[in-house]
Amino acid sequence: MADIGFIGLGNMGGPMAANLVAAGHRVSGFDLVPAAVESASARGVAAAASAAEAARSAEAVITMLPAGEEVRAAYLGEGGLIAAAGTGCLLIDSSTIDVASARAVHEAAADAGLPMLDAPVSGGVAGAEAAGLTFMCGGAEPAFARAKPLLEAMGRNIVRAGGPGTGQAAKVCNNMILGISMLACAEAFTLGEKLGLDPKKLFEISSVSSGSCWAMINHNPVPGLVEASAASRGYRPGFAAAMMQKDLKLSQMAANQAGAATPLGAAAAALYTLFVNAGHGDLDYAAIIKLVRNS
Amino acid sequence: MADIGFIGLGNMGGPMAANLVAAGHRVSGFDLVPAAVESASARGVAAAASAAEAARSAEAVITMLPAGEEVRAAYLGEGGLIAAAGTGCLLIDSSTIDVASARAVHEAAADAGLPMLDAPVSGGVAGAEAAGLTFMCGGAEPAFARAKPLLEAMGRNIVRAGGPGTGQAAKVCNNMILGISMLACAEAFTLGEKLGLDPKKLFEISSVSSGSCWAMINHNPVPGLVEASAASRGYRPGFAAAMMQKDLKLSQMAANQAGAATPLGAAAAALYTLFVNAGHGDLDYAAIIKLVRNS
Amino acid sequence: MADIGFIGLGNMGGPMAANLVAAGHRVSGFDLVPAAVESASARGVAAAASAAEAARSAEAVITMLPAGEEVRAAYLGEGGLIAAAGTGCLLIDSSTIDVASARAVHEAAADAGLPMLDAPVSGGVAGAEAAGLTFMCGGAEPAFARAKPLLEAMGRNIVRAGGPGTGQAAKVCNNMILGISMLACAEAFTLGEKLGLDPKKLFEISSVSSGSCWAMINHNPVPGLVEASAASRGYRPGFAAAMMQKDLKLSQMAANQAGAATPLGAAAAALYTLFVNAGHGDLDYAAIIKLVRNS
Amino acid sequence: MADIGFIGLGNMGGPMAANLVAAGHRVSGFDLVPAAVESASARGVAAAASAAEAARSAEAVITMLPAGEEVRAAYLGEGGLIAAAGTGCLLIDSSTIDVASARAVHEAAADAGLPMLDAPVSGGVAGAEAAGLTFMCGGAEPAFARAKPLLEAMGRNIVRAGGPGTGQAAKVCNNMILGISMLACAEAFTLGEKLGLDPKKLFEISSVSSGSCWAMINHNPVPGLVEASAASRGYRPGFAAAMMQKDLKLSQMAANQAGAATPLGAAAAALYTLFVNAGHGDLDYAAIIKLVRNS
Repeated sequence: MADIGFIGLGNMGGPMAANLVAAGHRVSGFDLVPAAVESASARGVAAAASAAEAARSAEAVITMLPAGEEVRAAYLGEGGLIAAAGTGCLLIDSSTIDVASARAVHEAAADAGLPMLDAPVSGGVAGAEAAGLTFMCGGAEPAFARAKPLLEAMGRNIVRAGGPGTGQAAKVCNNMILGISMLACAEAFTLGEKLGLDPKKLFEISSVSSGSCWAMINHNPVPGLVEASAASRGYRPGFAAAMMQKDLKLSQMAANQAGAATPLGAAAAALYTLFVNAGHGDLDYAAIIKLVRNS
Repeated sequence: MADIGFIGLGNMGGPMAANLVAAGHRVSGFDLVPAAVESASARGVAAAASAAEAARSAEAVITMLPAGEEVRAAYLGEGGLIAAAGTGCLLIDSSTIDVASARAVHEAAADAGLPMLDAPVSGGVAGAEAAGLTFMCGGAEPAFARAKPLLEAMGRNIVRAGGPGTGQAAKVCNNMILGISMLACAEAFTLGEKLGLDPKKLFEISSVSSGSCWAMINHNPVPGLVEASAASRGYRPGFAAAMMQKDLKLSQMAANQAGAATPLGAAAAALYTLFVNAGHGDLDYAAIIKLVRNS
Repeated sequence: MADIGFIGLGNMGGPMAANLVAAGHRVSGFDLVPAAVESASARGVAAAASAAEAARSAEAVITMLPAGEEVRAAYLGEGGLIAAAGTGCLLIDSSTIDVASARAVHEAAADAGLPMLDAPVSGGVAGAEAAGLTFMCGGAEPAFARAKPLLEAMGRNIVRAGGPGTGQAAKVCNNMILGISMLACAEAFTLGEKLGLDPKKLFEISSVSSGSCWAMINHNPVPGLVEASAASRGYRPGFAAAMMQKDLKLSQMAANQAGAATPLGAAAAALYTLFVNAGHGDLDYAAIIKLVRNS
Repeated sequence: MADIGFIGLGNMGGPMAANLVAAGHRVSGFDLVPAAVESASARGVAAAASAAEAARSAEAVITMLPAGEEVRAAYLGEGGLIAAAGTGCLLIDSSTIDVASARAVHEAAADAGLPMLDAPVSGGVAGAEAAGLTFMCGGAEPAFARAKPLLEAMGRNIVRAGGPGTGQAAKVCNNMILGISMLACAEAFTLGEKLGLDPKKLFEISSVSSGSCWAMINHNPVPGLVEASAASRGYRPGFAAAMMQKDLKLSQMAANQAGAATPLGAAAAALYTLFVNAGHGDLDYAAIIKLVRNS
């Protein structure tokens, strides 16, 4: 069992840290929000006074933070985790952030001789609670090998995507397809309805045809077609529209920096931004059909 | 066994008519192209001198024509099929056409007291040859019930989508999602590659994750990932880009007429038009990744 | 002075017919809406009992109808204007309709030996009242020469765009640019504002720079920048969003039929459709900034 | 007359520095490329051994660099310009860069007590040579007042857009409209042509109508319509497509960071990226019509 520093004990990080504790690890945790620390303490995480303290004697440090800026701030510079971590400490950033920031932190870790993984997750809060997350990992093979048993305490599907930054790349590419798929369904079911086609019939046909996609079958945006979809419970998330917008924006930042053309990805990002700016960011991402259908 | 008139004996109609013959029906066929008639004759279709003649004593007439204009011309007006067909003759249009034309022909048939179905297919030439097509049918339940045994001689999956025009609506909605899905994959795999992510790894991850879709798994646009995909045989179709463009354009005609907003469908239509206008209409629709990746 | 039949006496057609009367012509008018006929009568238009009657002894027939369907219905078939018009009668359709319908009517007129122009207008109700419309005419040169003096009673700028249908083509192309320009301004002024840039400053800079466009200078979507813009009077039209949507949809019908790729035109059409479907079709088209800014 | 340090003596910076010399200023210049320094020396710029040396005794430092990364590297950190500059030295960054980097450098300058402007230009190499640039400046009023006489030696139109970063914001917003306008023209003239409308006629009509825009009148993408347009000289730039792509990508980085929806800007960025990736970045940005028309 390992000594683990855990930074970021929010909706995702909190249950993840608790699952590490449940698996027998000793976890020292920190969050800027005192309530998050308290709540984690109640589940067996030792409260640290700072990120640096949480990292001090850890064999591995895991971070779960909102965005690239926070991750850079946490790892880099004088008081940062890279400076605080002991020799050989394994760094794992499970935040979903921009590829450029992920690579900047990887570089600084490499300069300091510390093994590192970017390891963003999918599965949401429910997956975090149930230790059922998917981890998409970018970094060297030995770092992945060391991380895997730790990550298995929090997830079911632990994959190495490739070198530094490819964990973020995999997540961003996967979720760009997901966002586009959801909009494709929203548009097609709305068009069908305006043409007099019962959504139930379109679902019956398309879900077993060439138009089938994961979003249609699992998160269908039309209420009543798929029981487990957020559409069937008033679009209570699930995976919030604001989170989808964040991932689509990350895909566009990456595409613009890499010089890749993603016309449908760009359109999807703009449409989710319209929807979020209109005040619907807290609804499930399937609710984008409200924008398309105007209802 | 029935007397059937079959109009349009091209790449699709030819083998469809032959399968009706093979199932024991008497088929009288017509096509404006003499070579198509000859080729169908060789497979047991009786050559008629005109569409009207083919329809004259038929219990059912099936049409397989390129576009709405040809379908209107074939059915409507003085010399048209509706005028030529005998009392109670069942009309089945298996062409993929615009919803407005489909409805105009339905109306004229209803005025003449003739039962009618729009019944566009998916499955391509291979499906037509193998009697493995999917038929998406729009029209009244009794017309569907009469048509079903005939269609089963040509296809495996016979579905009623609803009232007049909904067969076309179902096809157009399904294929709009397919076209968008293919572009989503083309964009995501290209973006991933530019971010240093091996397409094999992205496929491994996304094909079992929330980004999964039928196009990714069956027609993946990256060569070498899916053996059965046209991408793995130099983009030889399969389902030609020009056919996908046609279906996407139909979706946009329908959306504009119905007042439905389909921003991603519209973008997909424009991108396939760029690709087809650049001279690549004969390649498989998966080749759209060449436009996205510029290679 | 000429005998003129005028069909369609609504918001546009009413004042147009009145201006013909004011210029000394004898105008016999018809509209399906009795109130429209009455109102035109009060301005000197002689009420006809039907379109055919209005056309019977006219030297020229002018139509101002909502869409292609109405225009086809008015001109074609047994009771239509082409059948009713006397030898040599000049047909002028000033409706804004799809290019395909315009060409179908042109063909029927040519078959009947009647000269014809498609002659859609710009300038709106204000232009119609003030006899200040622009007419974009498609048809043969002699027909244009005959029509010009009549049109000058209703407009200031009478242009021949080319052969049959090119009047509609010119209008649709011009207004597609206008719709795109308006969205470009809405997006840029919103982006600028989110970046801390005062819209007044951006206007000061861009209105004399390479980003300048007619929409920015005359119909600026930001309230208070341009006094004459609908934005400065609560987006009271002016040119209603629903009319812009109609023109953008016509551009997309034409593009899909002609096989032209118009990715930005398609995006603009989808965005105006979102806006109109959300219930804002009666606002000026500059109000599209409300969709973009979410306010 | 002032002592000025000038960093970045390339295609733009070289002639700008020479114009400062011509106006009587003493200019000490540096560039990482020795040939650029030599060429500037020949026009009266004193060669400095490093950026820091060029800045050492300057009253004002001007930078003209390719992107945000280079600007951050030049200004920030131990050996950077902010550290090297003397008390009260005025910093002017005329590079076109992302708003976030511009603001980061502004903040560092403010921390060091140095006045600063972001002052990107438009007008291209021709404008730089002819001292005819437009400067869009962001920063405090006193800094602008001090900079103005210096900038007037290099440009004709010196505007203050507002506080820090708004110079970049103004440029990015203006050029986003320009890129969209060019695509609107490319789409409309192509659509018109496919509808049988002579581009000359469309130009005649639209250039004096509501579809008019700066791009149409000055940089019309159809060869032969506007003599001064790059289209009339084989698309030799002028303003290269790769530069337009850069500006559109900056607009999208800014939009994603600011949470602004720019659906048409996003589509334009993707289309220019397709065009540049296809190997056409060196053509004028008006050549985007080749992508749209496929010729």
